[in-house]
Amino acid sequence: MEPIRFRGDHILVLDQRKLPLESVWISVESAEEMARLIQEMALRGAPLIGIAAAYALALEGGKHGLTRLEEMGEKLRSARPTAVNLSWAVSRMLKHARESPATLAEEALRIHEEDRRACARIGELGAALLTPGPLLTHCNTGSLATGGEGTAYAILKEGFRRGKVPHVYVCESRPYLQGARLTAYELREDGIPFALITDSTAGYLMASGKVASVAVGADRVAANGDVANKIGTYALAVLARENGIPFLVAAPTSSLDPLLPTGQSIPIEERNPDEVLQFMGIPIAPAGTRALHPAFDVTPSRYVKAIITENGVLSPPYDLRRSLAAI
Amino acid sequence: MEPIRFRGDHILVLDQRKLPLESVWISVESAEEMARLIQEMALRGAPLIGIAAAYALALEGGKHGLTRLEEMGEKLRSARPTAVNLSWAVSRMLKHARESPATLAEEALRIHEEDRRACARIGELGAALLTPGPLLTHCNTGSLATGGEGTAYAILKEGFRRGKVPHVYVCESRPYLQGARLTAYELREDGIPFALITDSTAGYLMASGKVASVAVGADRVAANGDVANKIGTYALAVLARENGIPFLVAAPTSSLDPLLPTGQSIPIEERNPDEVLQFMGIPIAPAGTRALHPAFDVTPSRYVKAIITENGVLSPPYDLRRSLAAI
Repeated sequence: MEPIRFRGDHILVLDQRKLPLESVWISVESAEEMARLIQEMALRGAPLIGIAAAYALALEGGKHGLTRLEEMGEKLRSARPTAVNLSWAVSRMLKHARESPATLAEEALRIHEEDRRACARIGELGAALLTPGPLLTHCNTGSLATGGEGTAYAILKEGFRRGKVPHVYVCESRPYLQGARLTAYELREDGIPFALITDSTAGYLMASGKVASVAVGADRVAANGDVANKIGTYALAVLARENGIPFLVAAPTSSLDPLLPTGQSIPIEERNPDEVLQFMGIPIAPAGTRALHPAFDVTPSRYVKAIITENGVLSPPYDLRRSLAAI
Repeated sequence: MEPIRFRGDHILVLDQRKLPLESVWISVESAEEMARLIQEMALRGAPLIGIAAAYALALEGGKHGLTRLEEMGEKLRSARPTAVNLSWAVSRMLKHARESPATLAEEALRIHEEDRRACARIGELGAALLTPGPLLTHCNTGSLATGGEGTAYAILKEGFRRGKVPHVYVCESRPYLQGARLTAYELREDGIPFALITDSTAGYLMASGKVASVAVGADRVAANGDVANKIGTYALAVLARENGIPFLVAAPTSSLDPLLPTGQSIPIEERNPDEVLQFMGIPIAPAGTRALHPAFDVTPSRYVKAIITENGVLSPPYDLRRSLAAI
C-alpha cells in the first residue's frame, strides 16, 4: 500500500478518511491544498505527512520564488502542530531550494526513499528486541503512515516473519479509529493474525498476561526521550510498566526533536470536538454536549524501554543530542 | 429519570440502547422476557438489573409454583454473569417466595426502595471524601443504572451540590458509549458542567493535573476488595494511582460478594464482538476482522482508596467478610 504518489505536476493522495470502506484518490495540485488535506486528516502519520509536505513544495518549486516557497512552507508546517516531521521536511526542502532549486523534486523523492529504508531498518532493529509473544499496538504506524512498511508496524511485521509475533492486538484508537480502520486493514492484507480491541481493553489484556510487548510510533521525541504520540499512548505505557511489559517506541530520525529539552514543550493539537461527538455524522451524545479532543499525549521517557530509529536503538537514560551527534 | 416501573401485571422498562436519541418504553410481561432484555442491555447497571430481576419474579409469583420460579430465577441469574446484584436479588426473592409467597411484589418494591436510599447515603458518604476539584467518571452509574440517584454518580451529584465538584469529565465508555449516551444525558439534565472525552484521554487529563478524583461504580466486589467494573476501570485505577489521584469505588451492599476470596474468581462476561466491530450497524473495521469484547475488568484492591457503601466507607486493607459482619 503506497498512500502517496508524486507525478511531477500533481500528487496522488489516498483519502484515508474513507478507508477501509472506499479507496478514493485525490489529485493534489498545490501546497495549500496539501496543507488543508493534512489538517483534515485525509492523510496522516508523522512520517507520511513529512513526505507529503516535501512533495507539495517540490510541486511549487518550479513555479515560485523562494519567498513564496517559504510562505507555503509555513502553511504546511502549521497544518498540524504535534508531529515534528512536517517542520523537518519543510526545513530540508527550503534549504535545498536555496542551494539547488532545480532539483527540488529529486530531494522530495529522496526524502520518501530514505523513509522507506528507515522503515525497513527500524523493522529489523526492533524485531531483534521483541519478547516473543503477542504484541499490542495503537493507532496506525504502517505503510499508510509512512513512506515504507511503517515504524512500530514494521517491527511487528518483521517479528511475525521471524516467528516472534504470533498474534497482534490492535487498539481501535478513538475517535478516528485508525487502529480499526487502517491497521486492521494492513494486518489483514499482510495475513498477520490479530484481534481488534477497544482502547479500554488494553489494560485488561496486559494484566491477564496476554501481551508480551507493546510497540507504538511517535509524532515527536524530545531530547530527554519524552514521546508525543496518538492520544492513549501514555496510558498504554503506564499500564505496560505496571505489568512488566516492555514498551517500545519506533520513530525515524525525522521524528526526533533534540531542540526541545522535554516533552512538556511539545505542542498538543486540540482538534474539533465534533470528531468525538459524532460518528460518521451520527451524534453519540445529547445535543449541546461539550467534548475535549486532544489528539496526542506525552509519554515521559521513564516508561519507554527503547526508542528504535533507523540509525540505532536508543536506550535510557535518553539524551538525543548526544545520540544524534554520535551518528 | 426512573428507568423501571412496576405495574403489578407488567413492568415498564426504558430501552437504554436507544437513548439519548429516543425514549422508548418496553412493556415486560414475563421473567423470560426480562432476562432477554437484560442480556441484550436494554437495561443495564448492576443495581438496576438486580431490581429488574426482583420485579420479574414478582410478576411471575402469583402464576407459578416455587419450582418454576426457581427455574426463572436461574434464567435471570445467568442473563449476565459479572454483576452479582442479579444473583443477590434472585436469591432474596426466592427466599421470600418460600417464606411469604403472597407478598413477593412488596419484597421487590422494598428492594427498589432500599436501593434508592442506598444511593442517597452513598452520595453523602462519598461526597464527604472527595478532594475538591474536577471529578472523572466512567460508564454510567446514575439514575439509569440504579434505583435512585446512582452510585458514583450520586457522589458527584452531591459533590456538585456541596460545591466540591465544579466540573466532571466523562469517559465515553466504548463500545456501548454509556458515558456519552447516558451519563452525558443525566449530567445535562442535572445542570452539572461536564466534558465528554474518549476513554484514551483520561490518562492525559490526569497527568496534566486536571483531575482531583476518580469515582466509578462496581458490578461485583470480592472479599479482598478487588472490583469488577466496566472494561477500562482497571486502566483508570492504575493511571489514578500513578498520578496521586484518589480512586473511589461506590457500590451498594448488594454488589459485594464476600464469598469470592479475590477478583480472580469473578466471571468476566465476553460479549458479541460485533458490538465492537459495528457502530449503529455501520462496520468500523474491514470485513472478517476478529475482535474481543470483554465487558468488564478487575481492579485489584491495592489501587482502590475507598469503597463507599450505604452502610459505611470501607478502607484498605479490605476484608468484606469482617466489614459485613460488623454491620
